[in-house]
Amino acid sequence: MASEEKAPEVPDNQKIDKVPETILNKSFAQKGEDLKPSLHEWIDHPLSVITFESDQEEFFGCKAVPTQTIHDLSTTSYGKGDQVILDFGSHRVGYLSFHLGVDGINIDAPARLRVTFGEVPYDVTEDLHPCNTWISTSWLPDEIINVDWLPTDVEMPRRYSFRYVKFDIIDTSAKYEVRFSDVKVRAVSAVSPATFSAVEPLATSDEELAALDRTSQVTLRNCMQTVFEDGPRRDRRVWMGDLRLQALTNYCTFKDYTLVKRCLYLFAALPRADGSLPACLFEKPKLSPASDYIVDYDALFGPTVYDYAVESGDLETAVELWPTVLNSMIKALSHLDDKGKFNPEATKAWKFLDWSKGLDTTAGMHGLVLFCCKEINKLAVLISKPEPFSDIVKRMTVAGASFYDSPLGVFVSGPDRQVSWVSQAWLSLAGVMDPATCLAAIAKTMADEKSVKPLTPYAYHHVAESLARCGGEEQCLKLMREYWGGMVKAGADTFWECFDSADSRSSPYGDCHNNSYCHAWSCTPSYLLRVVLKDYLI
Amino acid sequence: MASEEKAPEVPDNQKIDKVPETILNKSFAQKGEDLKPSLHEWIDHPLSVITFESDQEEFFGCKAVPTQTIHDLSTTSYGKGDQVILDFGSHRVGYLSFHLGVDGINIDAPARLRVTFGEVPYDVTEDLHPCNTWISTSWLPDEIINVDWLPTDVEMPRRYSFRYVKFDIIDTSAKYEVRFSDVKVRAVSAVSPATFSAVEPLATSDEELAALDRTSQVTLRNCMQTVFEDGPRRDRRVWMGDLRLQALTNYCTFKDYTLVKRCLYLFAALPRADGSLPACLFEKPKLSPASDYIVDYDALFGPTVYDYAVESGDLETAVELWPTVLNSMIKALSHLDDKGKFNPEATKAWKFLDWSKGLDTTAGMHGLVLFCCKEINKLAVLISKPEPFSDIVKRMTVAGASFYDSPLGVFVSGPDRQVSWVSQAWLSLAGVMDPATCLAAIAKTMADEKSVKPLTPYAYHHVAESLARCGGEEQCLKLMREYWGGMVKAGADTFWECFDSADSRSSPYGDCHNNSYCHAWSCTPSYLLRVVLKDYLI
Repeated sequence: MASEEKAPEVPDNQKIDKVPETILNKSFAQKGEDLKPSLHEWIDHPLSVITFESDQEEFFGCKAVPTQTIHDLSTTSYGKGDQVILDFGSHRVGYLSFHLGVDGINIDAPARLRVTFGEVPYDVTEDLHPCNTWISTSWLPDEIINVDWLPTDVEMPRRYSFRYVKFDIIDTSAKYEVRFSDVKVRAVSAVSPATFSAVEPLATSDEELAALDRTSQVTLRNCMQTVFEDGPRRDRRVWMGDLRLQALTNYCTFKDYTLVKRCLYLFAALPRADGSLPACLFEKPKLSPASDYIVDYDALFGPTVYDYAVESGDLETAVELWPTVLNSMIKALSHLDDKGKFNPEATKAWKFLDWSKGLDTTAGMHGLVLFCCKEINKLAVLISKPEPFSDIVKRMTVAGASFYDSPLGVFVSGPDRQVSWVSQAWLSLAGVMDPATCLAAIAKTMADEKSVKPLTPYAYHHVAESLARCGGEEQCLKLMREYWGGMVKAGADTFWECFDSADSRSSPYGDCHNNSYCHAWSCTPSYLLRVVLKDYLI
Repeated sequence: MASEEKAPEVPDNQKIDKVPETILNKSFAQKGEDLKPSLHEWIDHPLSVITFESDQEEFFGCKAVPTQTIHDLSTTSYGKGDQVILDFGSHRVGYLSFHLGVDGINIDAPARLRVTFGEVPYDVTEDLHPCNTWISTSWLPDEIINVDWLPTDVEMPRRYSFRYVKFDIIDTSAKYEVRFSDVKVRAVSAVSPATFSAVEPLATSDEELAALDRTSQVTLRNCMQTVFEDGPRRDRRVWMGDLRLQALTNYCTFKDYTLVKRCLYLFAALPRADGSLPACLFEKPKLSPASDYIVDYDALFGPTVYDYAVESGDLETAVELWPTVLNSMIKALSHLDDKGKFNPEATKAWKFLDWSKGLDTTAGMHGLVLFCCKEINKLAVLISKPEPFSDIVKRMTVAGASFYDSPLGVFVSGPDRQVSWVSQAWLSLAGVMDPATCLAAIAKTMADEKSVKPLTPYAYHHVAESLARCGGEEQCLKLMREYWGGMVKAGADTFWECFDSADSRSSPYGDCHNNSYCHAWSCTPSYLLRVVLKDYLI
């Protein structure tokens, strides 16, 4: 990546003209605060000292090779220009510390080290700078530290997300070298090691599926901090659409209802003047909404409350959040034309669905909004309220069928009649046609090389779930084996923010060094296997 | 400075084959520890926001130009690629803190800043990296920091030595910029502000001399920490030869006898098996000797004890340190041949005197060792011991005269009969010839363009003192105005480790970015003006 290369620009739909005023609900904010968990902590050590050797058979073009045992590390000295990479064996989120020893006659200068935290090999095999990205390069996981008085213990104050730690010795002095010992991570999560271990193993003898389940759980656990973070490396905060999938996976694994409840209250504490909810929020330094707004994320609040109420049995919370649920649909529904069809041009607001390039969101958004209306109607029944969206559901179901192109046998979207996986997925999940028709549409689209494929596991999840919900359980499993299984084969310890099996450098941000490789919205294989496919797998 | 340029090598006399064992004197170490001062602290703020504009009339080729008032700083926002330089108005040693505010709709990423601490303009007007030096580049005064949750207060944990602070905003995000407010330094010194202010002004109406005196005092104060440091930027530790000059200047200004006593005990706690003392020592993480050994620094321990005893009246300490004083001369005296002439080839040990290139140390070392013998004899008298070096002084005085080249009228050194300022200074201070002859030799050498000039203020001090001691008070003043006055004209807030009026990039280390610009061994103008030239100036 040449530094002269022009950095990609912020996408248009990310640009925000004016942020509506937030009307803080102090009572909800306090409830959210009161539910803040104390994190569990445990210590892990690196398992080996490695280097990466070129191997073009591997997804990242290299493979780890041990250079010495971890026990020999503390007796090895490193001087100016040296490098050492430690492998913790799996992905961790936490605080690194180590003892920085010395070997030399005169410890006559500080030691300057670059410490780089790698989730994947590229993080530690390539220079992270310059980074050609439209998001902040401050996310890059490296630090330069100067240590004054050696030998000493070094505790790095920031939290990192990593499997690999690379030390580059920028300088010591001509008279001494450094040694590393007692390297460890104080790992943190809202999920205790006991809870993690107590999750019932997936009832399968299929090692591939068991690996998907395990990797999902590590992904989810490492994202479960004082909120459900989207990714512990980046952005380290809760996004509504991600939260829904995390919560669903959590219900069938760690069952931490409190953390879901906390996040629901935090969102409900931050409605904007028009009733809409922010796409994500910040806990620190104080609770505040991000300026990001996504129509689909707003609408997904209601379904997330519904899932929570069903799973936890806590109807009281659902009742208290009911007005917020209704308000969170106002913006989405304002996009419906007089026939109940979703018109993305109605507002400039960001419709996300996926990071795939050129995606026309009309059909997918129609499906998503209809899906949300149906879920919220079910929530109404659960808490004995009148169904608020009966008429809308009827009109949208009729209008939804108009996306179906009978001769092609697929759903099409927008003026160019774009065929995308995401359109099929959301209109199918919304049930605008019968399951068999939907399944055929999804399958046909997936078989069509020209169709717009998803980029993110978030979108792949909705495709996979739509397959299973329409009777395509086997196709769902096949997709899971290919997609999430592809990440595992590529060496994933946790599932990634995005994955393109054909391009290890694919990134929504212009540079894969700014990707997150432990990303919550990709944690759903456990949910798919344990819940959606449960009956099929027995 | 191109990165491809080969780094200068460690000079031969710095290379150490084998370090003699240290025989720790626990009792002395404890006395030193018990005398450790609590540092005084005070808060200072930057006075202006500046930029440097090219100005070839200035020593550093640039001059500071205010860009805004310090009051406007907190309302100015800085984003990716921006830079701001703050001027504290004078040199400070301490801990920087600031409030990092924000301006933007979404504080959605950490802020990554490079903070560079400048003693002189080059530190903040040029890239410090790469640095072509044979000492450690870990000394370079810059840090890269990543700040997670903004707005926030930032306290930088390491101590820095600076007048200027430059912030480079490496990145924020597309959605916010940072603001700086409440920038301050918690300055530290063993010298309290009250003590500093209470020093009697120099009795002179000569503004130039008053400026030399003030700058000396700031230099000394900023080097007085828990030991007399050589330089608060680098190496931040006590060296014997530097200590002697700091102590002399301290006696006529801040009169902190305790700190001198502490340093004497710390050195005396660390004799080596052969009785010699290390050239410098480390306080942290625990008291330990440096491997550096310098014959002249070892020998200067005795004179430093003598000065301390005379100034403080604390003869008890002098008595207790007397055996250490005697032992500290063993190595130096082992260089005398059977005629009592110093032979530098007798051992490989480092003879320093100055950093000037190609300096032949034979004559200068002869003078220095003789000077030390005489001072130690005076100490013996003071504490009622027999003079240990009466015979040696006689023989060395005779032998010392043999360095004098009558036809040339100067002292010469080594097989090439090198003429250097340093040789004249030390043989004069040792009194090997009558004062008039010595003064003429010094003056003749200084007038000779081909003679070896000093590089460091340490050597300039000995030249200046030798002039004054031989009746050349006016020449001493002239030299001071030229040399230390030259630094003041070049913009010095504190006196520097080295100064070459013809070359602002001169450095003993290959790259001036690794120079120290508040360096103890250059603090002596106060001592010269207040003590050595006292009678002359009245």
